[in-house]
Amino acid sequence: MSFLDYFRSQRKRSANVAKERLQIVVARERATRGGPDYLPELQSEILKVIRRYVEVDQDAVQIQLDREGDCEVLELNITLPDRH
Amino acid sequence: MSFLDYFRSQRKRSANVAKERLQIVVARERATRGGPDYLPELQSEILKVIRRYVEVDQDAVQIQLDREGDCEVLELNITLPDRH
Repeated sequence: MSFLDYFRSQRKRSANVAKERLQIVVARERATRGGPDYLPELQSEILKVIRRYVEVDQDAVQIQLDREGDCEVLELNITLPDRH
Repeated sequence: MSFLDYFRSQRKRSANVAKERLQIVVARERATRGGPDYLPELQSEILKVIRRYVEVDQDAVQIQLDREGDCEVLELNITLPDRH
């Protein structure tokens, strides 16, 4: 399965209203435990970069951080304003 | 299915060698056609941000851009050097 299929399959969960949405996922698999945990900082910097391209309301961003074993996943779901 | 499951399921495709890997996905669903296509530029800026946290070889980055209907997906797969 490609990410495109995954992304499209998620659409059903969101409201039926035609809105523009942006999803940014940063996933990391570590070979060994330890090392700095830079994902939260990376996320905030990526959001800054995105804001240079589109207007993003603070409350339009949903952030989720999942950890399981040696995998960490940071997910940002952004609903873009209609005017874009 | 969560992205974590998706990310873990992809592991089978990569080599069995224990390497650290990083995946960054930027997906966009447009309500209407048109508007600027900022995904490639956004990708290059995100890569710059990542380089501030980890050392990334130019040839360790695989970039894929998929388009289907109103969805665009930009996928960056990075194999990190062992020393990280």
